Amino acid sequence: MSKFASFINSTQKFSIKSDPLPSLKEGEILVKNLCTSLCRSDIHTYQGKRVEKSPTILGHEIVGVIEQLGPNAPVKDVRGNELKIGDKVTWAIFASSPEDELSKAGIPQKAKDLFKYGHEQITDHSHFHGGLSVNTVLRKNTPIAMLNNDLPNEIASLINCSVATVAGAIRLAGELKGKTVLVYGAGMLGIIACAMASKMGATNIIAIDENEQRLEISKKFGATQTHTPKAASKLKVDIVLEFSGAISAMESSIHLLHIGGAAIWIGAVFAQPAVQINAEYLIRNLITIKGLHNYNNEDFINAVNFMELNHGNFDFEQLIKKGFVLDQVDAAFEYAVTHNPFRVSIDLT
Amino acid sequence: MSKFASFINSTQKFSIKSDPLPSLKEGEILVKNLCTSLCRSDIHTYQGKRVEKSPTILGHEIVGVIEQLGPNAPVKDVRGNELKIGDKVTWAIFASSPEDELSKAGIPQKAKDLFKYGHEQITDHSHFHGGLSVNTVLRKNTPIAMLNNDLPNEIASLINCSVATVAGAIRLAGELKGKTVLVYGAGMLGIIACAMASKMGATNIIAIDENEQRLEISKKFGATQTHTPKAASKLKVDIVLEFSGAISAMESSIHLLHIGGAAIWIGAVFAQPAVQINAEYLIRNLITIKGLHNYNNEDFINAVNFMELNHGNFDFEQLIKKGFVLDQVDAAFEYAVTHNPFRVSIDLT
Repeated sequence: MSKFASFINSTQKFSIKSDPLPSLKEGEILVKNLCTSLCRSDIHTYQGKRVEKSPTILGHEIVGVIEQLGPNAPVKDVRGNELKIGDKVTWAIFASSPEDELSKAGIPQKAKDLFKYGHEQITDHSHFHGGLSVNTVLRKNTPIAMLNNDLPNEIASLINCSVATVAGAIRLAGELKGKTVLVYGAGMLGIIACAMASKMGATNIIAIDENEQRLEISKKFGATQTHTPKAASKLKVDIVLEFSGAISAMESSIHLLHIGGAAIWIGAVFAQPAVQINAEYLIRNLITIKGLHNYNNEDFINAVNFMELNHGNFDFEQLIKKGFVLDQVDAAFEYAVTHNPFRVSIDLT
Repeated sequence: MSKFASFINSTQKFSIKSDPLPSLKEGEILVKNLCTSLCRSDIHTYQGKRVEKSPTILGHEIVGVIEQLGPNAPVKDVRGNELKIGDKVTWAIFASSPEDELSKAGIPQKAKDLFKYGHEQITDHSHFHGGLSVNTVLRKNTPIAMLNNDLPNEIASLINCSVATVAGAIRLAGELKGKTVLVYGAGMLGIIACAMASKMGATNIIAIDENEQRLEISKKFGATQTHTPKAASKLKVDIVLEFSGAISAMESSIHLLHIGGAAIWIGAVFAQPAVQINAEYLIRNLITIKGLHNYNNEDFINAVNFMELNHGNFDFEQLIKKGFVLDQVDAAFEYAVTHNPFRVSIDLT
């Protein structure tokens, strides 16, 4: 039997249950979860701002230890390291066939047979697929990365959503060396983007947020300048990384780009009115807008590499509210809603 | 003395004048113009839909013959061919310093010291810079291409605006082999885009226009399917090349893209209300929008190569209304406004 937090909806919330673990199928791996952090989308589901088919197991920012290898389980991880029982691992938010046309085009997170950890319904045939649980069953075709044991669990748990998504945004932005990068929204992803852009050689990293406290923190993560949105109207930048999701941020930041600049939109993953774009301005200034949702295998690998190399260079731990265990999952979500820290993590050891 | 059509504004229009040719300065080349075709922007200026500082010499889709080489004139063209008196040449719409930061970034058409043929005021120090003239003085830092003599003048004149801009759009679109390309707007650029996309290996080329006659013509230039805008709502494509400039075209064609698809906006180079973009849709479908205005040296070279290789494969001549000479410039513009052919060309031989 293995314990998990079953989530129904924003009214009925969680109940702690135990179910028998399934026997592993072809290509599967059983993981003992170590730590799961609550992503913004988990909190939105908790609040009812988004709806998942339920019962479900929320949580996809997970790190764990390999407990059991199923028949024909992968022998190597995404970086070519051997996988064996006892290894500390994280894995992509998605499992999908590498033979799918979209996977081949570098967009496995949108393949037809997509399976997403932390976003699936519990059924007779599909269980233990979220992080708010003692175990996770890793499906066939899940990109898995073995991690250094010196990477703290709470920090490692950020890799497979926050860090990998930022790595995707930076891939779309292209070469950052010598560039001026605007990071719109200094939440978890924005803070990681400051850190990653600084390590990619960006000369100027400008963080924008309405929250002055977050701006102060961004300076410790590589931001060279910070502004509230109102004070940003005179900037000129090469790249915009838009994590806030605010219409005003998307509209105004286009006009802060140099000729030939690019805006990467990541934050606005919820229904809202249309963004108004002046097409003539976009054309005459050779502006690019790219949308990004989730990330691909390359981004996942870059995220793992980045955190292994840099977790000592930036104080990520200060961003994470620790101390909750699985039985306190309600309290953890309430804390996240009420205090709005960068991340709340659940200790599953 | 050299004759030219001096343009004042949409009320006073043209007067045919003659002025002495200036002595050539450092890096300049004197060209005897052979043929100039009227681009949409010329017609908009004629109609008063756009305003140039005047007096000016309109016309930038030009082909000519080298008449005189100034001191330290370039000895080679953009393809490395030697330049000498008597060579048939065309040249980019722009002249700008290759040392400018934007030039180095591949956007010479937006460099600080930009000079644009067919868009400059006649002054004591700047003259003979448009195609509606017997001569053009090519400025220093003008990308020049020597042309095969077997390329008809009327077709050659399309290279340095229509064809090169399409080459830029196709560069931004990336690999077309096996792709489905939507060409929105079957005017001169759209027709060239069909031809170029077909030669770049696109499997399906879908032309969209309200004008059924233009759609019929597009089929002779590589379009494999044609639709009026209303009939296009069920298509799924990899790339949109948007030449129409219509807000409805930009808005609706985003929703015809496959996940990971890209829309290149070229047509909307005039003031109009904002385009409404659903940011969540753009993000979840990993859509890219790129604006393009004019083109760079690489695009210019690709345009020359394309027309030299393919002018025999497509009947470009049928798109061009010929028979006007410089003294008939008013009649030529009136014909363009009234009959709206793909192009009207002025014979300057």
